[in-house]
Amino acid sequence: MKLIDQYANSIHALQDVGQLFFQRGWSVGTSSNYSVVVNREPCQLLITASGKDKGRLAEEDFVLIDEAGQPVHAGQPKSSAETLLHCVLAKHAGAGSILHTHSVWGTLLSQYYFSAGGFAMEDYEMLKGLDGVVSHQHTEWVDIFDNTQDIASLANELSQRFVDGTAPAHGFLMRQHGLYTWGKTIEDARRHIEIFEFLFECLVRKQTLFDATGSPAGIG
Amino acid sequence: MKLIDQYANSIHALQDVGQLFFQRGWSVGTSSNYSVVVNREPCQLLITASGKDKGRLAEEDFVLIDEAGQPVHAGQPKSSAETLLHCVLAKHAGAGSILHTHSVWGTLLSQYYFSAGGFAMEDYEMLKGLDGVVSHQHTEWVDIFDNTQDIASLANELSQRFVDGTAPAHGFLMRQHGLYTWGKTIEDARRHIEIFEFLFECLVRKQTLFDATGSPAGIG
Amino acid sequence: MKLIDQYANSIHALQDVGQLFFQRGWSVGTSSNYSVVVNREPCQLLITASGKDKGRLAEEDFVLIDEAGQPVHAGQPKSSAETLLHCVLAKHAGAGSILHTHSVWGTLLSQYYFSAGGFAMEDYEMLKGLDGVVSHQHTEWVDIFDNTQDIASLANELSQRFVDGTAPAHGFLMRQHGLYTWGKTIEDARRHIEIFEFLFECLVRKQTLFDATGSPAGIG
Amino acid sequence: MKLIDQYANSIHALQDVGQLFFQRGWSVGTSSNYSVVVNREPCQLLITASGKDKGRLAEEDFVLIDEAGQPVHAGQPKSSAETLLHCVLAKHAGAGSILHTHSVWGTLLSQYYFSAGGFAMEDYEMLKGLDGVVSHQHTEWVDIFDNTQDIASLANELSQRFVDGTAPAHGFLMRQHGLYTWGKTIEDARRHIEIFEFLFECLVRKQTLFDATGSPAGIG
Repeated sequence: MKLIDQYANSIHALQDVGQLFFQRGWSVGTSSNYSVVVNREPCQLLITASGKDKGRLAEEDFVLIDEAGQPVHAGQPKSSAETLLHCVLAKHAGAGSILHTHSVWGTLLSQYYFSAGGFAMEDYEMLKGLDGVVSHQHTEWVDIFDNTQDIASLANELSQRFVDGTAPAHGFLMRQHGLYTWGKTIEDARRHIEIFEFLFECLVRKQTLFDATGSPAGIG
Repeated sequence: MKLIDQYANSIHALQDVGQLFFQRGWSVGTSSNYSVVVNREPCQLLITASGKDKGRLAEEDFVLIDEAGQPVHAGQPKSSAETLLHCVLAKHAGAGSILHTHSVWGTLLSQYYFSAGGFAMEDYEMLKGLDGVVSHQHTEWVDIFDNTQDIASLANELSQRFVDGTAPAHGFLMRQHGLYTWGKTIEDARRHIEIFEFLFECLVRKQTLFDATGSPAGIG
Repeated sequence: MKLIDQYANSIHALQDVGQLFFQRGWSVGTSSNYSVVVNREPCQLLITASGKDKGRLAEEDFVLIDEAGQPVHAGQPKSSAETLLHCVLAKHAGAGSILHTHSVWGTLLSQYYFSAGGFAMEDYEMLKGLDGVVSHQHTEWVDIFDNTQDIASLANELSQRFVDGTAPAHGFLMRQHGLYTWGKTIEDARRHIEIFEFLFECLVRKQTLFDATGSPAGIG
Repeated sequence: MKLIDQYANSIHALQDVGQLFFQRGWSVGTSSNYSVVVNREPCQLLITASGKDKGRLAEEDFVLIDEAGQPVHAGQPKSSAETLLHCVLAKHAGAGSILHTHSVWGTLLSQYYFSAGGFAMEDYEMLKGLDGVVSHQHTEWVDIFDNTQDIASLANELSQRFVDGTAPAHGFLMRQHGLYTWGKTIEDARRHIEIFEFLFECLVRKQTLFDATGSPAGIG
């Protein structure tokens, strides 16, 4: 049985996500990967295969993996190199869908604030779209992890952060790499991507505007 | 009787507005809300339900409310948190349609000029697209209200401004939140959104260009 | 006989132009106007009616005018306020089509270089797309006229510039208003718009990049 | 026999490329050219004809040329002025497809770093999408060649660079002109374009952000 026969709705929803994110410039050059949890016990995720054009995902460009990131069926295409991060988030963050984008604005912030370990976003109305946030008077801290090709190690670190209660609340950046966020459903995760990417653009432009011009107009 | 049967034209027009504004990046992350006045005596507005994806508004994603912002029919989805602002504008500004967007440029200006209470836009030909403006030699002042979750209080303040004759002429910003504008028809309100968002981008870029480079070329 | 029956090709081509320019953000808020010369002796132009949404031009949103800018048929919608500029360019520049856009980048440059009367664009390969330019080693001077609601007076000034041999070569800006360019055909004029708008964006970004960072990398 | 009958897949794939690149703003004003190698012995390339609108390439807008850049069949439209560069890359870089874009970001970098002869891009995860790059810990040097209308001379220089082992690895810029890159297939070359253009935007924005604001946040 083909994955498309069993998971048509999920596959079509992730194809739509890919078209949107590619058009926005958040998933170009075959970057990014997307997943949805299709089973909890045992944990199984449907995830984009490695190296596919996200703007034109075919029905065959998905892999069914288990909680260790291994393919459930033989003969599937290779899943993304970062599959283990999806597994950690599915297990520890209660995510039903995990989305990773790779935008210019996220890349810039991941360089600009890397030595500070992350940055805060606060008082933005848009923050209310993040799951569980009820007022703009909220401070969202965005951790920046160093980029690595040793994903297993990063997955362990991330996993430990959930155990320690110091895990990212809604998303995190990898240096010069991009954003991970998640949600109960594909819709929720997609909304989180839209919100983070919007705020990332705001932060970079605000920094340039305010600093280029000395101080905000009307302030001392 | 379903709303779509009674108000198909208005619903389809607001769906188009949502697609356009989402594509422009002015209504992402389920932000923004849109309304149209469908009855004057008593005042009734058709308004977007809370938390919907504005790029893909379904025919069911609208609510019919009265002038106090309460649902006219039982069993409707919850309307936007900012419903009362629409009611005030329908009543006091003579608006036939009220549109609220949430753009990067508007957010930036609302931070940059907040302590000044607002900012002026002048000598732009684009201003002639605002209702009643006949020359580019016009100064449009854009008030910035502080953001709040107490919309009832803000609605009262806005209402009083109309009584006092100090109300915004065509639109206003809420800090780190976005733009409200309106018009006699959905078309008029949509044109106002396009004009304000165009000018907001001009103002931010102008500030960065002129200040980053010391002074305009060719000037002393 | 309706205009659409007689000039279907021209109307459809200008509708396409409108969709493209609106999508690019060069013709929002009902700004801009477009024309095509449909007769030479006597000179007649088909031109967009005033105040129409350029992203959704209807077949009825065009007017047939004579060389004095007057409607050829009774009962037509009002033509653009700037109709006389189209007439001058049709007559003196040998234009077969005149296109006017209203972009953020053009607006910025028209403010930045206004006191200098204009600005030069040189050494760009893209310049070779301008009619008659055969090498990137070309200097294109872009005049900036002050904005005015007295279009008749501006039309006279522009007309005199052609008589004096000091007319703009391919296009000009109006301060805080936008770009006029033209070509032998709609295709030529549209290519000119694309080239000017591309170069306008280059110039603003170059100024910000180079000046914000002191001097170009690797130079002195 | 028409080219479209023989090379329908390649032509349709390049038409898609043109639509995408035009929409992104990388191939406006009839700039850019694209080719695919359709025969190796003797070397034959299908290449875009000169001066065509890349967003709307017709099936007739392609030319079949030999390794010297000459048309294989009589009566074909004129091929791009830069045809010889495609021939060199087909021969020496083992390219199956060569794509040339003309973006704002590439133009800016080609001015900013011209006197340094080029610039490095490093530590970006996106680099892993370049053929043969397996880690983000990679330094990609982008050469900038001076722009010229003497393409034969530039083709010789480029050819010699391949002989000398100093050729660009994946792509290069021409000053105030744009990017050349290539790949084994059209898909590979297109992915390279997306990656270079993404990174070009990152570099310009990073330079402006970091320099405008003195130093990165959290550093020194």
